[in-house]
Amino acid sequence: MNFDNRLTRLLGVKVPIVQAPMGWIARAQLASAVSNAGGMGIIETSSGELDQIKLEIAKMRELTDKPFGVNIAQAFVRDPGIVDFVIAQGIKFVTTSAGDPAKYCRELKAAGLTVFHVVPTLKSALKAVEAGVDGLVVEGGEGGGFKNPEAVMTMVLLPLVAEKVSVPIIAAGGITCGRTMAAAFALGAEAVQMGTRMVSAAESPVHQNWKDAILAAEETDTLFLNHFSRPALRALRTKKTERLERELVPGYQGPPVMAEFANARELYFGGDMEASIALSGQVAGRIHSIKPVKQIIDETVAEYAQTIRRLNA
Amino acid sequence: MNFDNRLTRLLGVKVPIVQAPMGWIARAQLASAVSNAGGMGIIETSSGELDQIKLEIAKMRELTDKPFGVNIAQAFVRDPGIVDFVIAQGIKFVTTSAGDPAKYCRELKAAGLTVFHVVPTLKSALKAVEAGVDGLVVEGGEGGGFKNPEAVMTMVLLPLVAEKVSVPIIAAGGITCGRTMAAAFALGAEAVQMGTRMVSAAESPVHQNWKDAILAAEETDTLFLNHFSRPALRALRTKKTERLERELVPGYQGPPVMAEFANARELYFGGDMEASIALSGQVAGRIHSIKPVKQIIDETVAEYAQTIRRLNA
Repeated sequence: MNFDNRLTRLLGVKVPIVQAPMGWIARAQLASAVSNAGGMGIIETSSGELDQIKLEIAKMRELTDKPFGVNIAQAFVRDPGIVDFVIAQGIKFVTTSAGDPAKYCRELKAAGLTVFHVVPTLKSALKAVEAGVDGLVVEGGEGGGFKNPEAVMTMVLLPLVAEKVSVPIIAAGGITCGRTMAAAFALGAEAVQMGTRMVSAAESPVHQNWKDAILAAEETDTLFLNHFSRPALRALRTKKTERLERELVPGYQGPPVMAEFANARELYFGGDMEASIALSGQVAGRIHSIKPVKQIIDETVAEYAQTIRRLNA
Repeated sequence: MNFDNRLTRLLGVKVPIVQAPMGWIARAQLASAVSNAGGMGIIETSSGELDQIKLEIAKMRELTDKPFGVNIAQAFVRDPGIVDFVIAQGIKFVTTSAGDPAKYCRELKAAGLTVFHVVPTLKSALKAVEAGVDGLVVEGGEGGGFKNPEAVMTMVLLPLVAEKVSVPIIAAGGITCGRTMAAAFALGAEAVQMGTRMVSAAESPVHQNWKDAILAAEETDTLFLNHFSRPALRALRTKKTERLERELVPGYQGPPVMAEFANARELYFGGDMEASIALSGQVAGRIHSIKPVKQIIDETVAEYAQTIRRLNA
């Protein structure tokens, strides 16, 4: 299967599969595996640990000679030097998210970078195009992580945006295999992004307990939290998230849900699943084994090709 | 475009597009237009008005010589004679929903009917197959109407079920055009069901105000109500549903949400959008004009074919 579309050409990748920029997780070990397998590895900055990120980017250059990108999650990265930082690192591809697409776009593009913005609605997609982005990551509400409280699902959002914009689209939310990749392409995407699938990968640095929780999850085992406020989040069902789901309703007086991430490391790397919140998409219910990234990508491509052949028959 | 798959053969239709069984709406005027356009029109029984339904079925025989079906929404049809009623009407295709798939399946199949059950999770899909159904309507949470409180979206649910069952699948939830039909087929369906698109159709009997509200809706203009109880519902955003969304949370003490449907006729046919609840899927944000059913089906088929060609290129 040879992919050749606007996104493989623009990103310089063999396979139009992008790894999502999960905070603390999307670092060199995982991202280099994705880039080496022909996809697009992304380094996160949402942890805010820019000194560490600098080392991770240096590691990337040791671990792969393939393209990779960096995500700037604007709501979480408060360092005003983030753009200079990314440019100075020699990064060529940036996704911006969780903020005004106009904020960094001009500066990044002036420095020669390719800039995509992550959007959860048509309105935000049009605003990003207006700001001059090169493309969009269109993110459906079934995906994991921090979400727009008014969650629109991939089956609705993706064709809605695709019909209204001419820039290339990376589809996120619900994507985990070749069938879903083919569906996303039918809806108008030219690449897909995988988050939860990559969290579960062999090269993902998260604690085995988190991976085991993904394997054990059924498709009903994520909860959509805090949707009367912002940011909303989709996360694995735990005792904590079941409690939070019922508490984070109108009239809630407790600490902001983001306070839970002060203990992120205890969950992410310590394996205490009740210490914080394990962000996850509904695709957790479709993930039944831990696989190396290369196998995930190869199987996705093979199933994509098989699906297109089946549609032709 | 000639469709020829298990579902066109099993249902005897030219086009594998099924119209959803909306209470009060899915009657002869709308359903005959769908059957005459090559799809599968369905008559509802969830209104409970069986004397009227009998007349509607008689009307169907005047208005079309094509196949049509009947839905039995088990939670809403309390008449114990419903199965005898459907068999006596000479119906050949039944979808059952909102209840135990084993309840009516054996009796309906013994009478020679084809029986599909509507399922919102993998567990319910496996239970329906175990009960002996001929096929499944796999319904994602982005769709309108009464829903499982633990909503799983089409992009996740459909491939999950398709990989685990061998019976044919009708995909529902998020389907409104040829792109989404092609995506559903990529995910494993052999037919699609449209609800909100059919509510908006020229032949739909609902008041113009409801159709206008669909045309005006953005993709964020449906709300998912009552998901701490059952049934949950997805409906258009109105003053009433915005209030209900905030009220129907843990600790709610008011009347059950179903009490709102005592006034359904005032909304459905009287046009008072605050009198009851206008059930609707997120696809409302993708519907921009009122079209005759035949045009909806013809355009969907043409766009489906075009999408498959695009995927091949």
